[in-house]
Amino acid sequence: MDVLEAIKTRRSIRKFKEAPVPEELVQKVLEAGRWAPSSKNRQPWKFIVLKSGDIRKKLSELLTYGWFLADAPLGIAVIVDPKESGRSVEDGAIASENILLAAHGLGLGACWIGSYGIPLEDKARELLGVPEGQRLLSVIALGYPDEKPAPTPRKSLADIVFKDKYGER
Amino acid sequence: MDVLEAIKTRRSIRKFKEAPVPEELVQKVLEAGRWAPSSKNRQPWKFIVLKSGDIRKKLSELLTYGWFLADAPLGIAVIVDPKESGRSVEDGAIASENILLAAHGLGLGACWIGSYGIPLEDKARELLGVPEGQRLLSVIALGYPDEKPAPTPRKSLADIVFKDKYGER
Repeated sequence: MDVLEAIKTRRSIRKFKEAPVPEELVQKVLEAGRWAPSSKNRQPWKFIVLKSGDIRKKLSELLTYGWFLADAPLGIAVIVDPKESGRSVEDGAIASENILLAAHGLGLGACWIGSYGIPLEDKARELLGVPEGQRLLSVIALGYPDEKPAPTPRKSLADIVFKDKYGER
Repeated sequence: MDVLEAIKTRRSIRKFKEAPVPEELVQKVLEAGRWAPSSKNRQPWKFIVLKSGDIRKKLSELLTYGWFLADAPLGIAVIVDPKESGRSVEDGAIASENILLAAHGLGLGACWIGSYGIPLEDKARELLGVPEGQRLLSVIALGYPDEKPAPTPRKSLADIVFKDKYGER
Protein backbone atom coordinates (compact mmCIF):
# COMPACT_ATOMS: atom_id res chain seq x y z
CA MET A 1 0.00 0.00 0.00
CA ASP A 2 1.29 3.43 -0.92
CA VAL A 3 2.63 5.37 2.05
CA LEU A 4 0.41 8.43 1.49
CA GLU A 5 -2.63 6.19 1.13
CA ALA A 6 -1.65 4.27 4.28
CA ILE A 7 -1.38 7.51 6.25
CA LYS A 8 -4.73 8.76 4.99
CA THR A 9 -6.78 5.57 5.25
CA ARG A 10 -5.46 4.25 8.58
CA ARG A 11 -8.18 4.14 11.24
CA SER A 12 -8.11 3.21 14.90
CA ILE A 13 -9.46 -0.35 15.01
CA ARG A 14 -10.86 -1.60 18.31
CA LYS A 15 -12.86 -4.61 17.10
CA PHE A 16 -10.98 -7.60 15.74
CA LYS A 17 -11.67 -10.96 14.13
CA GLU A 18 -10.61 -13.98 16.15
CA ALA A 19 -8.04 -15.05 13.55
CA PRO A 20 -4.50 -14.86 14.91
CA VAL A 21 -1.94 -12.52 13.37
CA PRO A 22 0.52 -14.62 11.33
CA GLU A 23 4.02 -14.57 12.81
CA GLU A 24 5.43 -13.26 9.52
CA LEU A 25 3.27 -10.12 9.82
CA VAL A 26 4.20 -9.66 13.47
CA GLN A 27 7.86 -9.58 12.41
CA LYS A 28 7.11 -7.01 9.71
CA VAL A 29 5.36 -4.60 12.06
CA LEU A 30 8.19 -4.97 14.59
CA GLU A 31 10.68 -4.21 11.80
CA ALA A 32 8.73 -1.03 11.08
CA GLY A 33 9.16 -0.02 14.72
CA ARG A 34 12.84 -0.91 14.62
CA TRP A 35 13.43 1.39 11.63
CA ALA A 36 11.93 4.44 13.28
CA PRO A 37 14.26 7.41 13.50
CA SER A 38 15.31 8.43 16.99
CA SER A 39 17.20 11.30 18.55
CA LYS A 40 20.94 10.68 18.15
CA ASN A 41 19.96 7.20 16.94
CA ARG A 42 19.66 6.04 20.56
CA GLN A 43 16.71 3.68 19.78
CA PRO A 44 15.56 3.80 23.42
CA TRP A 45 12.77 1.26 22.87
CA LYS A 46 11.78 -2.32 23.62
CA PHE A 47 8.75 -4.09 22.17
CA ILE A 48 6.88 -6.71 24.19
CA VAL A 49 4.70 -8.92 21.99
CA LEU A 50 1.66 -9.83 24.08
CA LYS A 51 0.77 -13.34 22.98
CA SER A 52 -0.80 -14.50 26.21
CA GLY A 53 -4.55 -13.84 26.35
CA ASP A 54 -4.33 -13.82 30.12
CA ILE A 55 -1.77 -11.00 30.14
CA ARG A 56 -3.72 -9.03 27.53
CA LYS A 57 -6.85 -9.32 29.66
CA LYS A 58 -5.12 -8.28 32.88
CA LEU A 59 -3.38 -5.41 31.10
CA SER A 60 -6.64 -4.24 29.52
CA GLU A 61 -8.02 -3.73 33.03
CA LEU A 62 -5.13 -1.46 34.01
CA LEU A 63 -5.10 0.75 30.92
CA THR A 64 -7.41 3.75 31.14
CA TYR A 65 -8.85 3.35 27.63
CA GLY A 66 -7.74 -0.18 26.82
CA TRP A 67 -10.79 -2.38 27.40
CA PHE A 68 -10.68 -3.67 23.78
CA LEU A 69 -7.19 -5.13 24.25
CA ALA A 70 -8.83 -8.06 26.07
CA ASP A 71 -10.47 -9.20 22.82
CA ALA A 72 -7.61 -8.42 20.44
CA PRO A 73 -5.66 -11.44 19.22
CA LEU A 74 -2.35 -9.67 19.84
CA GLY A 75 -0.80 -6.66 21.50
CA ILE A 76 2.53 -4.89 21.35
CA ALA A 77 3.71 -2.88 24.35
CA VAL A 78 6.21 -0.14 23.49
CA ILE A 79 8.60 0.47 26.39
CA VAL A 80 11.04 3.38 26.47
CA ASP A 81 13.98 4.08 28.72
CA PRO A 82 14.41 7.78 29.59
CA LYS A 83 17.94 6.98 30.77
CA GLU A 84 18.86 6.02 27.19
CA SER A 85 17.58 9.23 25.60
CA GLY A 86 16.30 12.65 26.56
CA ARG A 87 13.71 12.26 23.81
CA SER A 88 12.33 8.86 24.71
CA VAL A 89 8.68 9.97 24.54
CA GLU A 90 9.04 11.38 21.04
CA ASP A 91 11.11 8.38 19.93
CA GLY A 92 8.63 5.86 21.33
CA ALA A 93 5.79 7.73 19.65
CA ILE A 94 7.57 7.55 16.29
CA ALA A 95 8.11 3.81 16.64
CA SER A 96 4.46 3.35 17.66
CA GLU A 97 3.22 5.29 14.62
CA ASN A 98 5.43 3.18 12.33
CA ILE A 99 3.86 0.06 13.83
CA LEU A 100 0.33 1.42 13.22
CA LEU A 101 1.10 2.34 9.61
CA ALA A 102 2.81 -0.96 8.85
CA ALA A 103 -0.09 -2.90 10.37
CA HIS A 104 -2.54 -1.02 8.16
CA GLY A 105 -0.37 -1.54 5.09
CA LEU A 106 -0.43 -5.29 5.79
CA GLY A 107 -4.23 -5.44 6.07
CA LEU A 108 -4.24 -5.51 9.85
CA GLY A 109 -6.03 -3.13 12.16
CA ALA A 110 -4.51 -1.52 15.20
CA CYS A 111 -5.22 0.99 17.92
CA TRP A 112 -2.76 2.93 20.07
CA ILE A 113 -3.64 2.81 23.74
CA GLY A 114 -1.98 5.75 25.48
CA SER A 115 -0.19 4.38 28.54
CA TYR A 116 2.47 6.93 29.39
CA GLY A 117 1.49 8.65 32.61
CA ILE A 118 -1.85 6.90 33.12
CA PRO A 119 -2.94 6.41 36.76
CA LEU A 120 -2.11 2.67 36.74
CA GLU A 121 1.03 2.80 34.57
CA ASP A 122 3.16 1.41 37.42
CA LYS A 123 0.86 -1.57 37.90
CA ALA A 124 0.87 -2.22 34.15
CA ARG A 125 4.67 -1.93 34.10
CA GLU A 126 4.93 -4.45 36.94
CA LEU A 127 2.53 -6.86 35.22
CA LEU A 128 4.88 -6.87 32.21
CA GLY A 129 7.99 -7.15 34.38
CA VAL A 130 9.39 -3.86 33.09
CA PRO A 131 12.20 -2.56 35.33
CA GLU A 132 11.47 0.58 37.37
CA GLY A 133 12.58 3.74 35.59
CA GLN A 134 11.53 2.48 32.18
CA ARG A 135 8.17 3.67 30.89
CA LEU A 136 5.16 2.10 29.23
CA LEU A 137 4.74 4.48 26.32
CA SER A 138 1.95 2.74 24.44
CA VAL A 139 0.18 -0.55 24.06
CA ILE A 140 -0.96 -1.32 20.53
CA ALA A 141 -3.91 -3.68 20.03
CA LEU A 142 -3.48 -5.62 16.81
CA GLY A 143 -5.47 -8.04 14.66
CA TYR A 144 -7.57 -8.40 11.55
CA PRO A 145 -10.17 -5.61 11.60
CA ASP A 146 -13.80 -6.49 12.28
CA GLU A 147 -15.11 -2.96 11.86
CA LYS A 148 -14.83 -0.20 9.26
CA PRO A 149 -14.93 3.06 11.17
CA ALA A 150 -15.52 6.30 9.28
CA PRO A 151 -12.63 8.76 9.46
CA THR A 152 -12.68 10.93 12.56
CA PRO A 153 -13.27 14.60 11.71
CA ARG A 154 -10.11 16.63 11.05
CA LYS A 155 -9.30 20.29 11.29
CA SER A 156 -8.79 21.77 7.82
CA LEU A 157 -5.34 22.73 6.55
CA ALA A 158 -6.61 26.33 6.45
CA ASP A 159 -7.07 26.14 10.23
CA ILE A 160 -3.73 24.61 11.13
CA VAL A 161 -1.19 25.81 8.55
CA PHE A 162 0.62 29.13 8.76
CA LYS A 163 3.27 30.76 6.58
CA ASP A 164 6.55 31.84 8.20
CA LYS A 165 4.87 33.16 11.34
CA TYR A 166 2.21 31.79 13.65
CA GLY A 167 -1.18 33.15 12.61
CA GLU A 168 -0.02 34.36 9.16
CA ARG A 169 -1.45 32.81 6.01
CA MET B 1 6.09 4.03 -2.58
CA ASP B 2 4.98 1.12 -0.44
CA VAL B 3 4.54 2.06 3.21
CA LEU B 4 6.87 -0.66 4.53
CA GLU B 5 9.52 0.33 2.00
CA ALA B 6 9.10 3.99 2.91
CA ILE B 7 9.59 3.20 6.60
CA LYS B 8 12.67 1.11 5.90
CA THR B 9 14.41 3.29 3.32
CA ARG B 10 13.76 6.72 4.86
CA ARG B 11 16.98 8.43 5.91
CA SER B 12 17.68 11.70 7.66
CA ILE B 13 18.67 14.11 4.88
CA ARG B 14 20.64 17.20 5.82
CA LYS B 15 21.99 18.22 2.41
CA PHE B 16 19.57 19.48 -0.20
CA LYS B 17 19.53 20.57 -3.81
CA GLU B 18 18.67 24.21 -4.42
CA ALA B 19 15.48 23.33 -6.31
CA PRO B 20 12.38 24.53 -4.47
CA VAL B 21 9.78 22.07 -3.21
CA PRO B 22 6.72 22.31 -5.49
CA GLU B 23 3.69 23.68 -3.69
CA GLU B 24 1.71 20.54 -4.60
CA LEU B 25 4.16 18.38 -2.64
CA VAL B 26 4.14 20.78 0.32
CA GLN B 27 0.38 20.33 0.51
CA LYS B 28 0.74 16.54 0.41
CA VAL B 29 3.20 16.38 3.27
CA LEU B 30 1.01 18.74 5.32
CA GLU B 31 -1.96 16.47 4.59
CA ALA B 32 0.07 13.56 5.96
CA GLY B 33 0.58 15.52 9.17
CA ARG B 34 -3.09 16.42 9.32
CA TRP B 35 -4.11 12.75 9.13
CA ALA B 36 -1.99 11.68 12.07
CA PRO B 37 -3.90 10.01 14.87
CA SER B 38 -4.01 11.92 18.15
CA SER B 39 -5.19 11.24 21.65
CA LYS B 40 -8.97 11.75 21.81
CA ASN B 41 -8.64 13.21 18.29
CA ARG B 42 -7.64 16.56 19.78
CA GLN B 43 -5.20 17.35 16.89
CA PRO B 44 -3.24 19.77 19.11
CA TRP B 45 -0.91 20.86 16.27
CA LYS B 46 -0.15 23.76 13.99
CA PHE B 47 2.29 23.62 11.07
CA ILE B 48 4.30 26.70 10.09
CA VAL B 49 5.69 26.42 6.56
CA LEU B 50 9.02 28.26 6.58
CA LYS B 51 9.27 29.79 3.13
CA SER B 52 11.42 32.77 4.08
CA GLY B 53 15.14 32.03 3.78
CA ASP B 54 15.80 34.76 6.33
CA ILE B 55 13.61 33.08 8.95
CA ARG B 56 15.08 29.64 8.20
CA LYS B 57 18.58 31.05 8.67
CA LYS B 58 17.74 32.83 11.93
CA LEU B 59 15.94 29.74 13.22
CA SER B 60 18.85 27.47 12.28
CA GLU B 61 21.05 29.50 14.64
CA LEU B 62 18.69 28.93 17.57
CA LEU B 63 18.17 25.19 17.12
CA THR B 64 20.76 23.05 18.88
CA TYR B 65 21.31 20.66 15.97
CA GLY B 66 19.70 22.61 13.16
CA TRP B 67 22.57 24.27 11.25
CA PHE B 68 21.51 22.57 7.98
CA LEU B 69 18.09 24.26 8.03
CA ALA B 70 19.81 27.43 6.75
CA ASP B 71 20.54 25.71 3.43
CA ALA B 72 17.31 23.73 3.09
CA PRO B 73 14.85 25.14 0.55
CA LEU B 74 11.95 24.70 2.99
CA GLY B 75 11.14 23.97 6.60
CA ILE B 76 8.04 22.97 8.53
CA ALA B 77 7.77 23.85 12.21
CA VAL B 78 5.43 21.60 14.18
CA ILE B 79 3.85 23.49 17.08
CA VAL B 80 1.79 21.78 19.78
CA ASP B 81 -0.47 23.21 22.43
CA PRO B 82 -0.33 21.33 25.75
CA LYS B 83 -3.58 23.08 26.75
CA GLU B 84 -5.37 21.26 23.92
CA SER B 85 -4.15 17.78 24.88
CA GLY B 86 -2.37 15.99 27.68
CA ARG B 87 -0.53 14.01 25.01
CA SER B 88 0.68 16.88 22.85
CA VAL B 89 4.29 15.62 22.69
CA GLU B 90 3.28 12.16 21.47
CA ASP B 91 0.72 13.65 19.07
CA GLY B 92 3.20 16.15 17.63
CA ALA B 93 5.75 13.38 17.20
CA ILE B 94 3.24 11.26 15.28
CA ALA B 95 2.42 14.15 12.95
CA SER B 96 6.14 14.84 12.44
CA GLU B 97 6.84 11.20 11.56
CA ASN B 98 3.96 11.22 9.05
CA ILE B 99 5.53 14.30 7.43
CA LEU B 100 8.93 12.58 7.21
CA LEU B 101 7.45 9.43 5.66
CA ALA B 102 5.30 11.33 3.19
CA ALA B 103 8.27 13.45 2.13
CA HIS B 104 10.32 10.33 1.47
CA GLY B 105 7.46 8.71 -0.42
CA LEU B 106 7.31 11.78 -2.67
CA GLY B 107 11.02 11.70 -3.46
CA LEU B 108 11.91 14.47 -1.03
CA GLY B 109 14.40 14.30 1.79
CA ALA B 110 13.78 15.53 5.30
CA CYS B 111 15.34 15.68 8.73
CA TRP B 112 13.63 16.13 12.08
CA ILE B 113 15.32 18.76 14.21
CA GLY B 114 14.40 18.15 17.84
CA SER B 115 13.24 21.46 19.29
CA TYR B 116 11.10 20.58 22.28
CA GLY B 117 12.95 21.63 25.42
CA ILE B 118 16.14 22.85 23.72
CA PRO B 119 17.96 25.70 25.51
CA LEU B 120 16.79 28.34 23.01
CA GLU B 121 13.27 27.00 22.40
CA ASP B 122 11.72 30.21 23.77
CA LYS B 123 13.76 32.38 21.42
CA ALA B 124 12.84 30.14 18.48
CA ARG B 125 9.19 30.29 19.53
CA GLU B 126 9.33 34.09 19.65
CA LEU B 127 11.01 34.28 16.25
CA LEU B 128 8.06 32.37 14.79
CA GLY B 129 5.50 34.41 16.73
CA VAL B 130 4.19 31.37 18.57
CA PRO B 131 2.11 32.35 21.62
CA GLU B 132 3.59 31.58 25.03
CA GLY B 133 2.42 28.23 26.37
CA GLN B 134 2.55 26.55 22.98
CA ARG B 135 5.62 24.48 22.22
CA LEU B 136 7.99 24.08 19.32
CA LEU B 137 7.98 20.30 19.02
CA SER B 138 10.08 19.87 15.90
CA VAL B 139 11.37 21.69 12.88
CA ILE B 140 11.59 19.59 9.76
CA ALA B 141 14.09 20.56 7.05
CA LEU B 142 12.75 19.63 3.64
CA GLY B 143 13.94 19.55 0.05
CA TYR B 144 15.23 17.37 -2.75
CA PRO B 145 18.04 15.23 -1.31
CA ASP B 146 21.62 15.95 -2.33
CA GLU B 147 23.15 13.07 -0.37
CA LYS B 148 22.54 9.34 -0.03
CA PRO B 149 23.40 8.44 3.53
CA ALA B 150 23.86 4.80 4.49
CA PRO B 151 21.35 3.51 7.02
CA THR B 152 22.32 4.25 10.61
CA PRO B 153 23.06 1.06 12.55
CA ARG B 154 20.06 -0.51 14.29
CA LYS B 155 19.70 -2.79 17.27
CA SER B 156 18.54 -6.24 16.16
CA LEU B 157 15.01 -7.46 16.80
CA ALA B 158 16.57 -10.13 19.03
CA ASP B 159 17.86 -7.35 21.26
CA ILE B 160 14.69 -5.31 21.53
CA VAL B 161 11.76 -7.74 21.28
CA PHE B 162 10.37 -9.71 24.21
CA LYS B 163 7.47 -12.12 24.53
CA ASP B 164 4.78 -11.38 27.14
CA LYS B 165 7.25 -10.22 29.78
CA TYR B 166 10.22 -7.89 29.70
CA GLY B 167 13.41 -9.92 29.23
CA GLU B 168 11.61 -13.11 28.09
CA ARG B 169 12.08 -14.45 24.57
